[in-house]
Amino acid sequence: MIAGIDLGATQVRVAVARSDGRIVATARNRTDALRTPRRVVVWASDQILRLSDGGPVDCVGIGAPGPTDPARGLLVNPPNLRGWKNVPLAALLEELIDCPVHLENDANLAGLGEFHQGAGRGIRTMVYVTWSTGVGAGLILDGKLFSGAHGAAGEVGHMIIDPSGPLDACGQHGCVEAFCGGKALARELGAPAEQLFDRAADGDTRAVARVRDAATHMGWALINLSNIIDPELIVMGGGVTRSWRQVAPVLTRVLRSSPFIKARRRPSLRRARLGDRAGQVGAVEWAREHL
Amino acid sequence: MIAGIDLGATQVRVAVARSDGRIVATARNRTDALRTPRRVVVWASDQILRLSDGGPVDCVGIGAPGPTDPARGLLVNPPNLRGWKNVPLAALLEELIDCPVHLENDANLAGLGEFHQGAGRGIRTMVYVTWSTGVGAGLILDGKLFSGAHGAAGEVGHMIIDPSGPLDACGQHGCVEAFCGGKALARELGAPAEQLFDRAADGDTRAVARVRDAATHMGWALINLSNIIDPELIVMGGGVTRSWRQVAPVLTRVLRSSPFIKARRRPSLRRARLGDRAGQVGAVEWAREHL
Repeated sequence: MIAGIDLGATQVRVAVARSDGRIVATARNRTDALRTPRRVVVWASDQILRLSDGGPVDCVGIGAPGPTDPARGLLVNPPNLRGWKNVPLAALLEELIDCPVHLENDANLAGLGEFHQGAGRGIRTMVYVTWSTGVGAGLILDGKLFSGAHGAAGEVGHMIIDPSGPLDACGQHGCVEAFCGGKALARELGAPAEQLFDRAADGDTRAVARVRDAATHMGWALINLSNIIDPELIVMGGGVTRSWRQVAPVLTRVLRSSPFIKARRRPSLRRARLGDRAGQVGAVEWAREHL
Repeated sequence: MIAGIDLGATQVRVAVARSDGRIVATARNRTDALRTPRRVVVWASDQILRLSDGGPVDCVGIGAPGPTDPARGLLVNPPNLRGWKNVPLAALLEELIDCPVHLENDANLAGLGEFHQGAGRGIRTMVYVTWSTGVGAGLILDGKLFSGAHGAAGEVGHMIIDPSGPLDACGQHGCVEAFCGGKALARELGAPAEQLFDRAADGDTRAVARVRDAATHMGWALINLSNIIDPELIVMGGGVTRSWRQVAPVLTRVLRSSPFIKARRRPSLRRARLGDRAGQVGAVEWAREHL
């Protein structure tokens, strides 16, 4: 058996799977109810032992909010998990489960999940973009997750698309999150990103206009990703999928507007298929790659 | 033996090497003197047979100006080689040399050359940026050249860094070449890129100012590359190396100005070491990877 853990700011999910990736049992809990890293780790390892019926677990994958240091299995200082600073998550789990544990950035593993069991099936090179409060990406290149020299590849949210644009919380002007991130979306309408996407889906005129403007900026980011990575497919996940009907035509139009990206190499654009299960599926696939 | 061919708009270079990559003999000719694709191919294959003393050649790599279609060994329609449209360069050579021939984009192979025998030795993940009249890049990820799903990865010159910027010849507004490419540099000062870099190196005040402004824009492109690829090292090659003393401090300053890219993952920046031999060395290494 293998296992995957998806540690988010809101929920922790555990999945136990067979070595072919088929998930046989899952459990979840609220992250804030568990509170400390130690208690999260103890709860997750208990669940893995329980769900695997005490049978041997050979490998565990964990997805966690960035920045992460995958080589050392470290959560560096995730802005959405207060008090989790330099937590050696992989090592803490290894003590309790007695098998290798591999940590990765959550967007990377959601991308890996979509690649193996979602919108990316049958594809070799794809970019998964998650667009909710934050914007991130996972790069699957020639069939493998690429996470960069320090685990920081795919930070699409902080790509600069207009150096004279608004100041983002990261300290840069005009990066993608400064135009499309939750804070930017909420600035005018006072609603969190997910709600704004819902309102746009319901046809609220102001929300639709705001989301479309953000989608234009996201479209430029997709042009840049296409020029740097040259993927066959771009999969969009996260809260944006709630107003996909409003967003997809804008993204497609902007991507097609680039005369430099000819039709023969223009990536397809698809909505993610696994919803909030993507991270847990990806964590299982990550464990599987290390078997 | 193996061989590498570097086909440029100005020169064609042929190198014959041992299977460990050591180059034993080279030849070169002017591309416009040979004129047609057929004559270039005949000349190159003659040189390979001559330089290898008739001994068997097991594999050939060719670098050529993009856009290329590596999977089909095709030069698509390089803007700098007039009349070369959809030339099946690999197939034409295979007929004459009777061994496998592998085509790649020239910037990719220059990057591969720097990676194996130049500024990138000892590195696993690097981006090679060539900045002359055009701007392109080669991505070496986890020790391997990554050229994208259609051979178009690393088109850094057409990354949009300011959607309201000047119109580039590619039809996009505010891409890197619109700020840093040869035409943009020449617009005010009336000199080709290489001359402008030389003048800047000589201290010509206007040239220095123009090159520094372009370097600021290039710095933003390097921030974006760092956020998407997360390399250990960025190597800069091409004409820009002529005024490296003026350009390097600007690139370094802009890269350090990004508060999102912390010191622990900030890539090093190095000048290319192989000069105009990078493409031929890379073509040999590309042949070697396919042995």
